[in-house]
Amino acid sequence: MAATTNIGLQFHTNYVTNKVNMNIAVKARDVLKMGLYSSDQINKLDKKRRFLLVGNLSSNGGSHVVNKINVMKENVIDVPKESLEDAIVAISRGRFVEDKFVYRQNFVVRSYEIGPDRTVTMETLMSFLQETALNHVPSLGTGGPGDDFGVTLEMSLRKLIWVVTRIQVQVHRYSKWGDEIEVDTWFDVAGKNGMRRDWLVRDHNTKEVIARATSTWVVMNKETRRLSKLPDEVKQEGLPFNFSRRAIAIEETDTERIEKLTDDTAEGIRSGMAPRWNDMDANLHVNNVKYIGWMLESVPKEVLKEYNMSSMTLEYRRECTESDLLESMTSPAEKVTGDTNNNSIIPKSNLQYSHLLRLQDNNGEILRARTQWHLKQKKN
Amino acid sequence: MAATTNIGLQFHTNYVTNKVNMNIAVKARDVLKMGLYSSDQINKLDKKRRFLLVGNLSSNGGSHVVNKINVMKENVIDVPKESLEDAIVAISRGRFVEDKFVYRQNFVVRSYEIGPDRTVTMETLMSFLQETALNHVPSLGTGGPGDDFGVTLEMSLRKLIWVVTRIQVQVHRYSKWGDEIEVDTWFDVAGKNGMRRDWLVRDHNTKEVIARATSTWVVMNKETRRLSKLPDEVKQEGLPFNFSRRAIAIEETDTERIEKLTDDTAEGIRSGMAPRWNDMDANLHVNNVKYIGWMLESVPKEVLKEYNMSSMTLEYRRECTESDLLESMTSPAEKVTGDTNNNSIIPKSNLQYSHLLRLQDNNGEILRARTQWHLKQKKN
Repeated sequence: MAATTNIGLQFHTNYVTNKVNMNIAVKARDVLKMGLYSSDQINKLDKKRRFLLVGNLSSNGGSHVVNKINVMKENVIDVPKESLEDAIVAISRGRFVEDKFVYRQNFVVRSYEIGPDRTVTMETLMSFLQETALNHVPSLGTGGPGDDFGVTLEMSLRKLIWVVTRIQVQVHRYSKWGDEIEVDTWFDVAGKNGMRRDWLVRDHNTKEVIARATSTWVVMNKETRRLSKLPDEVKQEGLPFNFSRRAIAIEETDTERIEKLTDDTAEGIRSGMAPRWNDMDANLHVNNVKYIGWMLESVPKEVLKEYNMSSMTLEYRRECTESDLLESMTSPAEKVTGDTNNNSIIPKSNLQYSHLLRLQDNNGEILRARTQWHLKQKKN
Repeated sequence: MAATTNIGLQFHTNYVTNKVNMNIAVKARDVLKMGLYSSDQINKLDKKRRFLLVGNLSSNGGSHVVNKINVMKENVIDVPKESLEDAIVAISRGRFVEDKFVYRQNFVVRSYEIGPDRTVTMETLMSFLQETALNHVPSLGTGGPGDDFGVTLEMSLRKLIWVVTRIQVQVHRYSKWGDEIEVDTWFDVAGKNGMRRDWLVRDHNTKEVIARATSTWVVMNKETRRLSKLPDEVKQEGLPFNFSRRAIAIEETDTERIEKLTDDTAEGIRSGMAPRWNDMDANLHVNNVKYIGWMLESVPKEVLKEYNMSSMTLEYRRECTESDLLESMTSPAEKVTGDTNNNSIIPKSNLQYSHLLRLQDNNGEILRARTQWHLKQKKN
């Protein structure tokens, strides 16, 4: 049995006040056709109204206050909104824009995704990037049969998985709880055996660019955990989707070597950190995003409180498993405080740090990183 | 200037295969009316088609594979989908159902919200409950002017905040990446000075109940951090919304005392855990949800791997700040393995544990807990 239902969405957009008012309506005869309600129930409706109003949403383009569906009392039957919800859920996972070259996913920042200053944490932002990329790949229609994240059919046949070797993130502004952001992602070839994936993060309402990121990926054999050449068949799969746009301009792309910290050069060291069970992915390796929390453990608390990280370059060197004990090391390029002036210490407006995350037992390098920080604007 | 746009969503639902196919269409004349495109551009369209097809979404009710919007090439103009996106974002924050007594929010499980067995972690599930509750309160229209989470106007005037004293969660099934779940929440009075808040978590597609939770809350003075009587004015604010339904039946509600573990009774102890900067909320106290990860640190890894937590009762005893060092203690009610049979050890199908999270320096109690676990179904 198949049925057709028309659900009308009527938008009243006031371009001056930037307010959107939406009515959700369903044709009465379609409700009847769906067979979910008797004609007796339908007869209680005003037949002359072509549409049965089932809800109203209003949203203010500027602040996007909480929206309510006010089900109108005069309509004595409930109209199934499930199909509409299905559509909403589907769209919220992301979709293609710009002729399938760019994949976009929207996020509303949740209460548990923000830090003590009520803005989104770097870990959350990285998770948004990861999630969008992972929804992008299967949407290309080249997905493998297994449930390995982001693995295409040709990769799956060869037991290959993607691993990130380097990522650079620039953050212009950190979003707050409830903010709506949209993440665009695309990829391109990078050299003979690599892929470049970029992201552009915008405020959904103002379209202001709030973050940019670029990353380099290579393939690894899932079983031997060794890097592999990128097979031609995998290159071919990606070919129709390669897109050469750059989120971060070439001249701003950080390709410089990151210095390797040692016991002598590190100023802050935090040892004895152990991955938790839930930090593991399905292959029992630590998820890349988790490294950021550990990296920040050796950064002075005053910096975490008073500064925002404005840019970060991570270089992934080795995988980490659940039995590993980790050591986090940080060294500033300069002192946190600048000149003293009238006996008060003036904090510098910009700071730069180098970081190393290593295995505690054999000093094996897991991650090298470089971060830049801007002094936060003081609230009055 | 105000404009009206009609966006038609046409659903073709096949009730046998449980597939939904949706076309997004906009009336050509409405596009013209919006003034965003010239009549020349509009003229390129087939005038006889009432609707201009701008996209297609298809979704399989059973597995909900990735959906695509295939913008049709023959339509030479782009139709703005922004208003539709606004509506989608608005609905995704949650809305009232059942005459405003129940607030519902949908979640699509994200890649970074699952654990090594690819199912949602208890910490994520608790975060979903928290997020829905925090979106519920401001939607009631009783919100205070500040940005304290879930604080009403009358509470704000008295510098009061809500604190949870006890929460019980039952999990029947853990969702996977991409699963759609819906969280319902409501509250009621509890005794003279408390509030009870319940949650019912369903699979969005099958409506199967996958988790239930109930919690008790009292008010605390934000500045003195001392518990307070619940003022009548605050009770009055909540009165129109009090709803006596119970997510967990009274006879299943865990009101029993949770034993206090000591150095003598604890079998697993994990010391030296320090909150990270990003574990803090805006008042520089640790977010309740973070306690779960620490609690699990003293549970044997084999249990975390082989069992699912099926129920949990947490009793919050004290706040925790960033300078505190924590100790996690766990004691099983019985041994993990049962009888030995033909030299092989048969794991028990159900386990029960007691937990204590305490301050390392003075043994001050932060959290007592009781958990139950079911042996996972083996995959073939």
